[in-house]
Amino acid sequence: MAIITLTTDFGCEDTFAAQMKGVILGIAPGVTLVDLTHNIPPQDILGGALALDDAADAFPPGVIHVVVVDPGVGTSRRPLAVATERETLVGPDNGVFAPLLARRRTMQAVVLVNPACRREPVSPTFHGRDLFAPAAAYLAAGTPLHDLGPPAGGLVGLDTPQPRFAPDAIEAHVLRIDRFGNLVTDLRGEDLIRWLGSAPRKSIAFEAGSLRVQGLVLTYAAVPPGESVAYVGSSGRLEIGLHGGNAAAASGALRGAVVRVTRR
Amino acid sequence: MAIITLTTDFGCEDTFAAQMKGVILGIAPGVTLVDLTHNIPPQDILGGALALDDAADAFPPGVIHVVVVDPGVGTSRRPLAVATERETLVGPDNGVFAPLLARRRTMQAVVLVNPACRREPVSPTFHGRDLFAPAAAYLAAGTPLHDLGPPAGGLVGLDTPQPRFAPDAIEAHVLRIDRFGNLVTDLRGEDLIRWLGSAPRKSIAFEAGSLRVQGLVLTYAAVPPGESVAYVGSSGRLEIGLHGGNAAAASGALRGAVVRVTRR
Amino acid sequence: MAIITLTTDFGCEDTFAAQMKGVILGIAPGVTLVDLTHNIPPQDILGGALALDDAADAFPPGVIHVVVVDPGVGTSRRPLAVATERETLVGPDNGVFAPLLARRRTMQAVVLVNPACRREPVSPTFHGRDLFAPAAAYLAAGTPLHDLGPPAGGLVGLDTPQPRFAPDAIEAHVLRIDRFGNLVTDLRGEDLIRWLGSAPRKSIAFEAGSLRVQGLVLTYAAVPPGESVAYVGSSGRLEIGLHGGNAAAASGALRGAVVRVTRR
Repeated sequence: MAIITLTTDFGCEDTFAAQMKGVILGIAPGVTLVDLTHNIPPQDILGGALALDDAADAFPPGVIHVVVVDPGVGTSRRPLAVATERETLVGPDNGVFAPLLARRRTMQAVVLVNPACRREPVSPTFHGRDLFAPAAAYLAAGTPLHDLGPPAGGLVGLDTPQPRFAPDAIEAHVLRIDRFGNLVTDLRGEDLIRWLGSAPRKSIAFEAGSLRVQGLVLTYAAVPPGESVAYVGSSGRLEIGLHGGNAAAASGALRGAVVRVTRR
Repeated sequence: MAIITLTTDFGCEDTFAAQMKGVILGIAPGVTLVDLTHNIPPQDILGGALALDDAADAFPPGVIHVVVVDPGVGTSRRPLAVATERETLVGPDNGVFAPLLARRRTMQAVVLVNPACRREPVSPTFHGRDLFAPAAAYLAAGTPLHDLGPPAGGLVGLDTPQPRFAPDAIEAHVLRIDRFGNLVTDLRGEDLIRWLGSAPRKSIAFEAGSLRVQGLVLTYAAVPPGESVAYVGSSGRLEIGLHGGNAAAASGALRGAVVRVTRR
Repeated sequence: MAIITLTTDFGCEDTFAAQMKGVILGIAPGVTLVDLTHNIPPQDILGGALALDDAADAFPPGVIHVVVVDPGVGTSRRPLAVATERETLVGPDNGVFAPLLARRRTMQAVVLVNPACRREPVSPTFHGRDLFAPAAAYLAAGTPLHDLGPPAGGLVGLDTPQPRFAPDAIEAHVLRIDRFGNLVTDLRGEDLIRWLGSAPRKSIAFEAGSLRVQGLVLTYAAVPPGESVAYVGSSGRLEIGLHGGNAAAASGALRGAVVRVTRR
């Protein structure tokens, strides 16, 4: 009972994602399909990469993740399948797998060139349906990875925001804003705690746009409604929130904005 | 072949709902997953409660409904599993099950404290993934309810709008506005008919914001396009619509607005 | 392992689509459910018809497509099930199947009147749940089509935009705008190529609102970022796009707008 997940920037108005599912079910009828999200902003490779990286650990070993955020569709960018010690990834060679692969071991990576594992004719604008969906389905149905094509060699990387650490401050960045308006940053909770050392959590101060927060707590409900709050969210990253409100709106901070962390 | 449904305020941009599914499929691989909706307004317990109450009767007996509208996540509010004569409910003890339980028999309710039925470490901000999803999955896989934790005793209630009945008028309220702009009210069709007695349906008048409607009909298509219309909708509640238009926009009535019902 | 797809204008805020799934799973527990889309604009029969027509060929033979875009629900419009050489269609007799049926053979069409294949009582406002979902589920579970009701005879048609061909120009139309802002037209790629004859693809000029495009290419990535582009999209239709931008916003062209095609 294989699982295939889909992550795309196709949105939910059109039938693009459904067409991928139709193709998959025609090749691997018993497969379980899960949408990670189809609302990655159009052509936002980093957004797709972070969504996959956030969600991957929740799935059981053997899962196949298909990611189609693919501004280079129809050009010479390579179509890939990549096996790690835990899952298989299918999608374009544009860096969309880089954050997850940075914390996995890459066991095998192939370029999808086997015409027997495509849907012909391959539309030059819709490799999700004609190339990536069939590849995932054949893998789910038991085709070995090396049957899909030759070894890929080095993969395209991705320029991912990284916090800058200094002894007296960290410059972190807003990676994305979630539905509740929480600011999700590029600062891992474990790195923050390591930097903090023996200083108490109450001593940390955060600045995001016009919001100031004093102290790191366990969850946004730990402060009274209406107060801003800093905590390590469910993806293990520092988040700035506003209990019962919208931190993004209140702070004016946009994606990419600096979140300054100091001790005092 | 168990069914697990998910109702959350997570939206469809992030991967939160998908992470819950990944956890469930890791524990109960053959389960059928159905999204009720992930678009409950953030932290709107009443909205989540009504969505569940509206949808529950369409599902076969034995279904497991997980509802995560959980402003108190990470605080002392209790995590629950509740068995009725028809389904099992999993979610926070904040009243989100109250409207459905008001018309069911509660057979058993337990507090989810068994560490063997959690995903460790439990994130203080994402009990949906680490606590409610595993509980539902273990239930689907055959774990008896009483293995999840001790009896819960009394549950938290919910202050739900109720119509006020007088001999010459009913004061009902807009519970929610659906996608078509129809005003869905807290007045049950059967209660309206009982109040009406032997008076003809044509004699009822409705006022919602600036809209006036004369007569109760079977469906909005029973009046000419452009006319406002009152009927009992698919959830058994009085609705005010506008044939081919948007009653909410035309009336100016918002959620909570009074819908006045009189006979003349 | 039957597949049932759902296409509706119910949106994703309410539980309407989920209720249909609950009913289906109660009758046909092992069925695979796929959402084509629930975001057809309210009561937009043409939009629903095009979504089905775009997606149908991606699904394997034997699939059952349920389409509920049904402004006439509760009136005398007939509920249908239609078998083609490839799939079965279930929905209202309002033309929503017409574009797909125009390129299929209709093998059998029946009116859904068998009370044993409904969910009683049938809500006059929600045939999706009480009439179409059960019909599809009984078909998936093996009930023969002719058990659902008597032959339907002629079906309601649909007035679909069609390009007008002249020797020196084609007047095409914007059928819909996709999530990327691409203008999807009613001009089939094969008809455009036939009209073009031996003239080179570079010689075709396109006008859509304020956008001018010279030449037909294979994919939007074939032009530099910021340039407008004309190509045959994944549904086989001419599309006008803007590489890295939004052609609909840039052109000002709305649905129904003329796209003028000339040679020079």
